[in-house]
Amino acid sequence: MSDWPGAYADTGVFVCFEGGEGSGKSTQSGLLRDWLQEQGYSVLLTFEPGDTIVGRELRRIVLSPETGQLSDRTETLLYAADKSEHVDTVVLPALERGDVVITDRYVDSTLAYQGAGRSLVPGEVEHVARWATHDLRPHLTVVLDLDPRRGLSRFAGRDRIEGESIEFHERVRDAFVDMAKADPDHYLVLDARADIDEIAAQIRAAVAPLLEMATRR
Amino acid sequence: MSDWPGAYADTGVFVCFEGGEGSGKSTQSGLLRDWLQEQGYSVLLTFEPGDTIVGRELRRIVLSPETGQLSDRTETLLYAADKSEHVDTVVLPALERGDVVITDRYVDSTLAYQGAGRSLVPGEVEHVARWATHDLRPHLTVVLDLDPRRGLSRFAGRDRIEGESIEFHERVRDAFVDMAKADPDHYLVLDARADIDEIAAQIRAAVAPLLEMATRR
Repeated sequence: MSDWPGAYADTGVFVCFEGGEGSGKSTQSGLLRDWLQEQGYSVLLTFEPGDTIVGRELRRIVLSPETGQLSDRTETLLYAADKSEHVDTVVLPALERGDVVITDRYVDSTLAYQGAGRSLVPGEVEHVARWATHDLRPHLTVVLDLDPRRGLSRFAGRDRIEGESIEFHERVRDAFVDMAKADPDHYLVLDARADIDEIAAQIRAAVAPLLEMATRR
Repeated sequence: MSDWPGAYADTGVFVCFEGGEGSGKSTQSGLLRDWLQEQGYSVLLTFEPGDTIVGRELRRIVLSPETGQLSDRTETLLYAADKSEHVDTVVLPALERGDVVITDRYVDSTLAYQGAGRSLVPGEVEHVARWATHDLRPHLTVVLDLDPRRGLSRFAGRDRIEGESIEFHERVRDAFVDMAKADPDHYLVLDARADIDEIAAQIRAAVAPLLEMATRR
């Protein structure tokens, strides 16, 4: 499927949450952070786009309805610039310290939203996103899977991306599930409609075996 | 040197000015525009980075000293996003109308500043910049060649890029000249220290044969 082999940090633990709007990524990433901190792990909870100085400006540009039309390539390159700065200045330094890094969205969001959702060639979008991030992969990506008709109902028209058609968001959903199927060792797909505590328990069970790479304070 | 074959518009004329700071690009691009307009050609004079709505914001981010450090990849991706939007919404529509499009900086600036000036792999920078611009090339690129010690004296420290070392700007200068040598049919290298009117005359002589592709009003 891809010419990119993937690189995995050998210190720290890198966990990513992916899924459509309203799937519970921020709830579950927060619960995971709390559980890890209670056990004494040093945890960095972060997100894309926007968790750097330049990223905040890029997030505003790509998401604000005031931006109007952006070409699909421009949108992809802006997300890639956000990722590049995020990996270099936030994610990698934390992994080098031995932290557990939990990110709400990462490269898979670009592959799903710009690669599958837009009319670009997916392999070309992947090239840009992998180059931006040194091909660094999460040790585990949790996909919170949800019918976009359910997730979007809470947020309809909130920003440039969320205002896209249901068909767009269905392509995005399928892309996340397909990526998980292609690499089951690094993905966990969960039904986002399940009970919050039940989902959290399944995530903890998948993260626990990874923690020997992380530093306790 | 490059796996990218290059694409050339078959309507309109695409002329690019490249060179270091203080080499006279804006003076000469303005003189060329005036000469073409006097003959009745429809001319669009534009520039990179920053001549679109999103580009103005990106220009501020990449050039403002307040931005501080940006990773080399982030800088490259921000310039590429500016180019992508510029080509799709400004350059290509004007060429399709049959205009003469004159741009102050284009892809070669990314290849020189980020590809040769920074510590990135030049072929990887080229990949991003060519993808962003559909590999669209100018029919003619005019390189105004100048020792950076002369050009920068007028502008020292004015922005993030201009504040780089002389060695950085020497690598940039060499990169422009090397690109011209590799493709002499599409480049004109002129000594930027020559008389302004003499330089303008040489540029007009190189542009004149291209004008049969352009529309007169």
